[in-house]
Amino acid sequence: MPLVQITMLAGRTADQKRKIAKGITNVLVEEAGARREGIVIAFHEVSKESYASGGELMSDKGSNPQPK
Amino acid sequence: MPLVQITMLAGRTADQKRKIAKGITNVLVEEAGARREGIVIAFHEVSKESYASGGELMSDKGSNPQPK
Amino acid sequence: MPLVQITMLAGRTADQKRKIAKGITNVLVEEAGARREGIVIAFHEVSKESYASGGELMSDKGSNPQPK
Amino acid sequence: MPLVQITMLAGRTADQKRKIAKGITNVLVEEAGARREGIVIAFHEVSKESYASGGELMSDKGSNPQPK
Amino acid sequence: MPLVQITMLAGRTADQKRKIAKGITNVLVEEAGARREGIVIAFHEVSKESYASGGELMSDKGSNPQPK
Amino acid sequence: MPLVQITMLAGRTADQKRKIAKGITNVLVEEAGARREGIVIAFHEVSKESYASGGELMSDKGSNPQPK
Repeated sequence: MPLVQITMLAGRTADQKRKIAKGITNVLVEEAGARREGIVIAFHEVSKESYASGGELMSDKGSNPQPK
Repeated sequence: MPLVQITMLAGRTADQKRKIAKGITNVLVEEAGARREGIVIAFHEVSKESYASGGELMSDKGSNPQPK
Repeated sequence: MPLVQITMLAGRTADQKRKIAKGITNVLVEEAGARREGIVIAFHEVSKESYASGGELMSDKGSNPQPK
Repeated sequence: MPLVQITMLAGRTADQKRKIAKGITNVLVEEAGARREGIVIAFHEVSKESYASGGELMSDKGSNPQPK
Repeated sequence: MPLVQITMLAGRTADQKRKIAKGITNVLVEEAGARREGIVIAFHEVSKESYASGGELMSDKGSNPQPK
Repeated sequence: MPLVQITMLAGRTADQKRKIAKGITNVLVEEAGARREGIVIAFHEVSKESYASGGELMSDKGSNPQPK
C-alpha cells in the first residue's frame, strides 16, 4: 500500500491529475505488486515562487513558459 | 520531538484542527514519551482533484459527499 | 482518509508504535470524521545524527539521554 | 519537474524499484508534460512495525504475507 | 542531489524565498558536496490554523504577531 | 518555525550533517526571520537503489562515483 506524494508546480488540470493518478497506480500494481485499493496519491502544488532548482526560483528562470 | 505531517482533504474547520492537534500531541506525549513543546504538527490540505486512492481522484468518486 | 507521516528519533518499540497508531487513528476518527480504514500512518525514524533543532544535531545535545 | 516521494514497505528488489521509477517517470512525461531529466523519485522504505492502516500496524495484520 | 522540503507559515515574500533558496543551496554545495543543479527546494506554506506546536495551533498563540 | 526535511543519498558524515544543519538554520534565521530554537531539520537518507532522476536509479548511473 504505497503512499505517493507528488510535489509539482500548480497548473495541471484535473484531467491531467486523473491520468497521472491512474498511470502511477497501474505502475505500482504491475511492478510492485501493490494492492490497487491501498495506493494513495496526493498532489502538493506549489507556485513558481515556492519552487527552486540550482538555487534559483522557478519564477526567476526566464526560459520555462509552461509549468514543467 | 516528533514531527507530524498530515495530508488530508481541505474542509476541516479550525476547531477540528485544534482538537486533532491537541489529541495527537497528547497521544505522542503519553505513548512515545515525547516532550510536549517539541511536537510539531502541520496540516497539508489538498483538494478532491489532488487526492486519489485506487487510481481514482476523490472528485470522481460518487459516494463520498463529505470530506473523509 | 488522512495520511499521517511521523518523523521521529529511532528507538521506540513496536508496542509504542502500536499505541501511537491506534491513538492517532482514534483522534482522527473522532475529531476529523475520517473513515478509520482510510487512515494511514507511517513512521520515519531517523538517528540522532540526522535530526537537528536550533541548528544543533540531537547527538550533540548533552542533556537528552532518552529519545524525545 | 515533479518530485515524487514514495513511502512503502521494505522488501522490493532493486529491479522492482528500477521499473517503478521508469514507469512513473514515463507517466509524468506523457501526462503532465514534465521534463524527464527534472523528475526525481525517492523511495522511503519502512518496516511493518512502522506502517499502519485503520489503526493497526502492518506487522499485526495476519493475512498479508507479502509486502503490499 | 538533495531534495529539500520546507514547511513554514505563509507570509514570506518572493524575495525572502529567493534568498532562502540561494542560501540553502550554497550550504548544500559547500558542506555536502552536492551538485548545484541537482538541488531542489520546495516551500510548503501553511496557515496559522494548519500549524501547531505543543498541541496548540499557531493561530491560538497570542504572542507571535509575525510569522516565525 | 520552519520544518526542513532533506532527502539525500546516504553517505554523509555526522560532521557534514552538523555543518548543513547549522548552515541551513542560519539561513532561515537571517532570511526568513525564523526563531532559531523553532527550526527543525531532519535528514532522510536513501540508498542509490532508492533514488532516481530522469527515470534511472542512481545505482544505474555510471559516472557518479561519490554521493552527490
